[in-house]
Amino acid sequence: MKIQIINGPNLNLLGLREPEIYGGHSFGAYLEKLQAAYPAVTLTLYQSNVEGELINKIQEAGYGSEGIILNAGGYTHTSVAIRDAIKAVPAPVVEVHISNVYAREDFRHHSMLSPVCRGVIAGFGLDSYRLALEALLEANKK
Amino acid sequence: MKIQIINGPNLNLLGLREPEIYGGHSFGAYLEKLQAAYPAVTLTLYQSNVEGELINKIQEAGYGSEGIILNAGGYTHTSVAIRDAIKAVPAPVVEVHISNVYAREDFRHHSMLSPVCRGVIAGFGLDSYRLALEALLEANKK
Amino acid sequence: MKIQIINGPNLNLLGLREPEIYGGHSFGAYLEKLQAAYPAVTLTLYQSNVEGELINKIQEAGYGSEGIILNAGGYTHTSVAIRDAIKAVPAPVVEVHISNVYAREDFRHHSMLSPVCRGVIAGFGLDSYRLALEALLEANKK
Amino acid sequence: MKIQIINGPNLNLLGLREPEIYGGHSFGAYLEKLQAAYPAVTLTLYQSNVEGELINKIQEAGYGSEGIILNAGGYTHTSVAIRDAIKAVPAPVVEVHISNVYAREDFRHHSMLSPVCRGVIAGFGLDSYRLALEALLEANKK
Amino acid sequence: MKIQIINGPNLNLLGLREPEIYGGHSFGAYLEKLQAAYPAVTLTLYQSNVEGELINKIQEAGYGSEGIILNAGGYTHTSVAIRDAIKAVPAPVVEVHISNVYAREDFRHHSMLSPVCRGVIAGFGLDSYRLALEALLEANKK
Amino acid sequence: MKIQIINGPNLNLLGLREPEIYGGHSFGAYLEKLQAAYPAVTLTLYQSNVEGELINKIQEAGYGSEGIILNAGGYTHTSVAIRDAIKAVPAPVVEVHISNVYAREDFRHHSMLSPVCRGVIAGFGLDSYRLALEALLEANKK
Amino acid sequence: MKIQIINGPNLNLLGLREPEIYGGHSFGAYLEKLQAAYPAVTLTLYQSNVEGELINKIQEAGYGSEGIILNAGGYTHTSVAIRDAIKAVPAPVVEVHISNVYAREDFRHHSMLSPVCRGVIAGFGLDSYRLALEALLEANKK
Amino acid sequence: MKIQIINGPNLNLLGLREPEIYGGHSFGAYLEKLQAAYPAVTLTLYQSNVEGELINKIQEAGYGSEGIILNAGGYTHTSVAIRDAIKAVPAPVVEVHISNVYAREDFRHHSMLSPVCRGVIAGFGLDSYRLALEALLEANKK
Amino acid sequence: MKIQIINGPNLNLLGLREPEIYGGHSFGAYLEKLQAAYPAVTLTLYQSNVEGELINKIQEAGYGSEGIILNAGGYTHTSVAIRDAIKAVPAPVVEVHISNVYAREDFRHHSMLSPVCRGVIAGFGLDSYRLALEALLEANKK
Amino acid sequence: MKIQIINGPNLNLLGLREPEIYGGHSFGAYLEKLQAAYPAVTLTLYQSNVEGELINKIQEAGYGSEGIILNAGGYTHTSVAIRDAIKAVPAPVVEVHISNVYAREDFRHHSMLSPVCRGVIAGFGLDSYRLALEALLEANKK
Amino acid sequence: MKIQIINGPNLNLLGLREPEIYGGHSFGAYLEKLQAAYPAVTLTLYQSNVEGELINKIQEAGYGSEGIILNAGGYTHTSVAIRDAIKAVPAPVVEVHISNVYAREDFRHHSMLSPVCRGVIAGFGLDSYRLALEALLEANKK
Amino acid sequence: MKIQIINGPNLNLLGLREPEIYGGHSFGAYLEKLQAAYPAVTLTLYQSNVEGELINKIQEAGYGSEGIILNAGGYTHTSVAIRDAIKAVPAPVVEVHISNVYAREDFRHHSMLSPVCRGVIAGFGLDSYRLALEALLEANKK
Repeated sequence: MKIQIINGPNLNLLGLREPEIYGGHSFGAYLEKLQAAYPAVTLTLYQSNVEGELINKIQEAGYGSEGIILNAGGYTHTSVAIRDAIKAVPAPVVEVHISNVYAREDFRHHSMLSPVCRGVIAGFGLDSYRLALEALLEANKK
Repeated sequence: MKIQIINGPNLNLLGLREPEIYGGHSFGAYLEKLQAAYPAVTLTLYQSNVEGELINKIQEAGYGSEGIILNAGGYTHTSVAIRDAIKAVPAPVVEVHISNVYAREDFRHHSMLSPVCRGVIAGFGLDSYRLALEALLEANKK
Repeated sequence: MKIQIINGPNLNLLGLREPEIYGGHSFGAYLEKLQAAYPAVTLTLYQSNVEGELINKIQEAGYGSEGIILNAGGYTHTSVAIRDAIKAVPAPVVEVHISNVYAREDFRHHSMLSPVCRGVIAGFGLDSYRLALEALLEANKK
Repeated sequence: MKIQIINGPNLNLLGLREPEIYGGHSFGAYLEKLQAAYPAVTLTLYQSNVEGELINKIQEAGYGSEGIILNAGGYTHTSVAIRDAIKAVPAPVVEVHISNVYAREDFRHHSMLSPVCRGVIAGFGLDSYRLALEALLEANKK
Repeated sequence: MKIQIINGPNLNLLGLREPEIYGGHSFGAYLEKLQAAYPAVTLTLYQSNVEGELINKIQEAGYGSEGIILNAGGYTHTSVAIRDAIKAVPAPVVEVHISNVYAREDFRHHSMLSPVCRGVIAGFGLDSYRLALEALLEANKK
Repeated sequence: MKIQIINGPNLNLLGLREPEIYGGHSFGAYLEKLQAAYPAVTLTLYQSNVEGELINKIQEAGYGSEGIILNAGGYTHTSVAIRDAIKAVPAPVVEVHISNVYAREDFRHHSMLSPVCRGVIAGFGLDSYRLALEALLEANKK
Repeated sequence: MKIQIINGPNLNLLGLREPEIYGGHSFGAYLEKLQAAYPAVTLTLYQSNVEGELINKIQEAGYGSEGIILNAGGYTHTSVAIRDAIKAVPAPVVEVHISNVYAREDFRHHSMLSPVCRGVIAGFGLDSYRLALEALLEANKK
Repeated sequence: MKIQIINGPNLNLLGLREPEIYGGHSFGAYLEKLQAAYPAVTLTLYQSNVEGELINKIQEAGYGSEGIILNAGGYTHTSVAIRDAIKAVPAPVVEVHISNVYAREDFRHHSMLSPVCRGVIAGFGLDSYRLALEALLEANKK
Repeated sequence: MKIQIINGPNLNLLGLREPEIYGGHSFGAYLEKLQAAYPAVTLTLYQSNVEGELINKIQEAGYGSEGIILNAGGYTHTSVAIRDAIKAVPAPVVEVHISNVYAREDFRHHSMLSPVCRGVIAGFGLDSYRLALEALLEANKK
Repeated sequence: MKIQIINGPNLNLLGLREPEIYGGHSFGAYLEKLQAAYPAVTLTLYQSNVEGELINKIQEAGYGSEGIILNAGGYTHTSVAIRDAIKAVPAPVVEVHISNVYAREDFRHHSMLSPVCRGVIAGFGLDSYRLALEALLEANKK
Repeated sequence: MKIQIINGPNLNLLGLREPEIYGGHSFGAYLEKLQAAYPAVTLTLYQSNVEGELINKIQEAGYGSEGIILNAGGYTHTSVAIRDAIKAVPAPVVEVHISNVYAREDFRHHSMLSPVCRGVIAGFGLDSYRLALEALLEANKK
Repeated sequence: MKIQIINGPNLNLLGLREPEIYGGHSFGAYLEKLQAAYPAVTLTLYQSNVEGELINKIQEAGYGSEGIILNAGGYTHTSVAIRDAIKAVPAPVVEVHISNVYAREDFRHHSMLSPVCRGVIAGFGLDSYRLALEALLEANKK
């Protein structure tokens, strides 16, 4: 079973950027542990700061994997184009956020993507990714 | 470890009510299976249609358990009083929704509770409760 | 044929409260006359000031009667939870108001309940209840 | 006793237009049955697609009948001029709608006319007209 | 002279909850001192987390006391039903808040109750209750 | 010099309708006196309840007179089409209102027509028409 | 094949009115050329300044032609009644505008009609009508 | 008969400032001609750029003259305090504007003062003042 | 102990202006009685209709007294500058209103000043000033 | 004559994605037929999911072709940057949409691009492109 | 070359007021250093808390200097009258703010003055004034 | 000292595009002169039309230079992702605009970036860049 993790803008700075919100560890280190804990799944990671490249990857993985875990970063709140990409592909997409976006600035309370995602998980730090993986695995059983 | 599940208005009708949105099984049946899968945790369930009784229970469990999984149903979107209760207690509260509330009517897109909860999980059917439990267990490790 | 009348907050004060808006007679006196005029129907009345108790009664009567006449008082304008209860039950619900709510304060112009009720009758004093009963009887013929 | 029914734009298409919303019968057929059921009342019907002609008729019937049953169709939501006409005449006006307008598009939720009408009846199909007649008859007794 | 104090949701937690906003003392201790300072008045306290029970008590005290001091907590900002209850009773109601609600979240800036209360006192800690009592005593002289 | 007075919906009821707002005299009686006081001007009156007929007349008089005094009644607040007609003709148009529309309901505070009229006169009873005539005469001198 | 062109308010002034926006030619002259270029189609033109007469014509042509090209002028932005007429008839309706309405005043950016039309063509001067005709012909092939 | 003209901020620049909007003549020159044309009235002028000084003068003239012609300039759109002053005095106040404020920036479309003035005259250049004077004279006859 | 009372625009008219809202007594008479009742406090009064002079006085008293009782009248709802002055000085400021501003026009419901004042007292007639004094005395004890 | 077609995000999925909205054919197949039908024009196609690459291409073609047919997909509704690019180039740009965007979600009703495009064509399926081509050809004749 | 610096309300408190936002130095001290650094320019300072006095000074300096550096403090966000003054004078006006107003409360994000100023400089502490001076000097070269 | 200038979409067209707003010179020519005037600073320029590439460069320069001068063009008003990048890096960022954005279309009045930038400079033509450089140099001294 193949699951694609897609990280949007500024998530490459994880560990460097605002550690009081996002934690002090890099995503690479976390992913290694996550992969080890779920050996039956093949996890691949893609990160880009470019909105259109995220769309490219959603299109590709949306036809070539069993599920997508998407943290679209700042594009979450404004991108009609990413929303259209999610709706256009057959693979289920789970929207994740490291921080509790609803407890931050007003413009982070609304997501353009949530209505077309399978579900949303926000606020559990990096553990949000593991919970998304659990959700995809469970959904896959049915 | 004690975890309190609190279900708000109309969730007692689960299995009867709009099965295309909420599924065809009662919550009791689901809870039994969940408890069996997590024997190290003591799960207790409380359901009420009365906003103030939910507050009573949040106050009680907020001082007497390790975590609360809260599906406040229709009160999610309007209740300042439940929000105040969540903020007033030390136990972490995870907000869950069975359906993807962001894909439904506009008035369901905004939650009064999310900003004071630990995190939010929405859209995975009853599995949302298990994911919330997983999140609380993981958070408890730290 | 069983019809349940459900009155929400402050409607127990009818006859005492703002008689220039709500009239000078108690609801009990009116109900007696209404029942006498429609002997083929069994009318029962429930009144509560508690939002959740109204939900309890809607759930009960929604599965155990042929129709509900609902005056949800001040909860009309804010309650997502009552709306969810109405949508969750098979019996038809008619929303009634004694006064013409559209001619009063702005916050009374919008009803959370109307979109999920069968229909709305407002502004005819206590006669609004009789008209609702007429509507349910007529609908029942089909 | 004379009651004037005034139907606004597109109600001449009843029976042809969107039968899943408005039903499959013409208004003429319905009116015949209604007149037969209430022989003590003289019912007359006026229909026009022209806003100003509806105003002309409201002015005329507002001084020459005991009551008006008004379905202003699409003008309901925008017409200050019809509102002024209703307010300018002594006869009571009951606003009716065949469909439950509150369950349709947002722009149909607000009526310019309701605040100056005696009351509002919406959502009971053609039976809304009979209920309005009942309301006018009852009000006339007082 | 009888004055009823009515405290809404979460005010039973006073002293436990967010002491930097609400102070570290329980309401009971404060009330004892207040009663001692005003021996000519009989002060009684009612607290409930249930909106409808607050309405019950406003109805009862609104006909059976010389004044009500009301801190409706989170219901202040949303409850049309409590507003209707205040308007329905003859006793004057003074709205009080411990904290300066206007300096907190936006949704606390608007009160549904203020327009139907005699006056509003906010921001003086527990002393807001004594000021309300002073206001009722002064008003009673006239 | 020819000046066209155009009166919109319900202004034919002047003297009958809400005399506390609009006064107790018919427009005809007023116009006679006005014409007598300004013998050098030819005043003609047109009244219609039909929006499109008002447009017809604005087009006609807009090319065939030296100025238009327009009281568009309820259409003032909503009609893009009348606005377009005013803008399409060379004759200056003065917007008049008998009552002070800014002191009435909110929806009367905004005029679609004012931005394309020469000027606005409101609140002086029927004298508003004389003032408009004075304004057109003065403007004509230049 | 019969196509009905319906022009709304002020379009009878074409060539006279604001030529920098609408061009200097009358619609009649344009229509002649258009008919000559498409001899296989029977084009008929209707123009009225009266909203209700436009509705009458939409009803008639909506059952008696293969398509309608509608330029509703100022009614485009406000008329629920015209919208209802378009929705009520089987013939496809194409909304056209001579000017680019989206580049003009804010109130011209929103059309009440677009959601129920087949499509929208705006900004190409009188050529917008030819393009609408092309669209109807192409659609008719299928 | 005494009439007070009160000019607000920047009206001392008349003749200097934006002559395409406000004309090229100073207010003093205009006032001289106006006084000469109405010898039976005593006209006095007050100008200040200070909001509170305008209030002082409104209070003074509001008790010591038969009418006030007020052009409050930029304070028109924001000043609750000037509104309160107008409402507090017995003399009638006519609001005037040299330009057609409704045809300019959005924030000039709303006046805080209009609802408490006798009437409004806008858009006729300096002639707006004469029309206001005419309106006060006519009203004084009654 | 020195307390400065600062009254804003139009409060010099107290007793003259709208007595049904503000009462029939002048502020001077009231102040004399208040001073007599609290001999241990030195009360001084400042009134101005000029926003900037109120700021001057707030700055002066904010560094030279133990507290300020401020009724900013119409500036309450719009003045960022007074808000900044309150925030800039060390003395506590209590906002008072004679009338229940929340029960009047919409634009009086929002105060620019409340978020930076110690607290707010509104609706108790002139007694609001005494209550504010009580609040400052009590706060001073701590 | 050179015409550049520019397709934005997700339009590369045409034929795959939501065929009930966008049809079942790929854009390549359509373009071939279109080119064949208009041999006198050189049509070139550019597609990208990246907003900035669309801007690059608009800049290039805006100086190097006779016209641009632009379907900016999801960027239509949010992109100030694409708007600026269109405004910055001399070639005329026609905005096209395959579906009737005005009949879909609210956020698709507003286009950032329409005010700076020559015109807009929406709702005719792939035929929207041909109509845009026709419009550019006609405009080129003048 | 003469440059007028105009400081609005509360800027006389610089050094005293909220030093974490505005710094700990008085404006006088800063101005001395600034004047020393730019000996070729004559800098004069005016400060007032009165909106109308700022207008007086803008009028005076607007005709008697080569440029104005304006920090209108709290009036920035509300004053139509200052905006009108800026627009009415020929000298260029640069709007400055010590703090980054866009990073503070919402009501400070919008300036009534910016659209009529030459430019805006905000957020650089007192150095904002020097940058404004540099901008005026550079502009003066052209 | 290294300063990075980052120019966003369409700024590569400077000198070509709308010269009445942006001037007739290319940015390259300007930069050469600026570098010559400030030999102690190393200025480097980056321009891209791609939002994500701007983020890449902000990340890089944000850790590798002493300051960033950012003109994000059309992305200024919508990009949460660029905002996040600015907040994520240690180097100070100054937001610049060539034109006075506050005097243009409404959607240009709000910047997503200003709240996280050091300061904002707008409206001084290309000189805005020099002023930003001055600001960074001055800040660097402290």
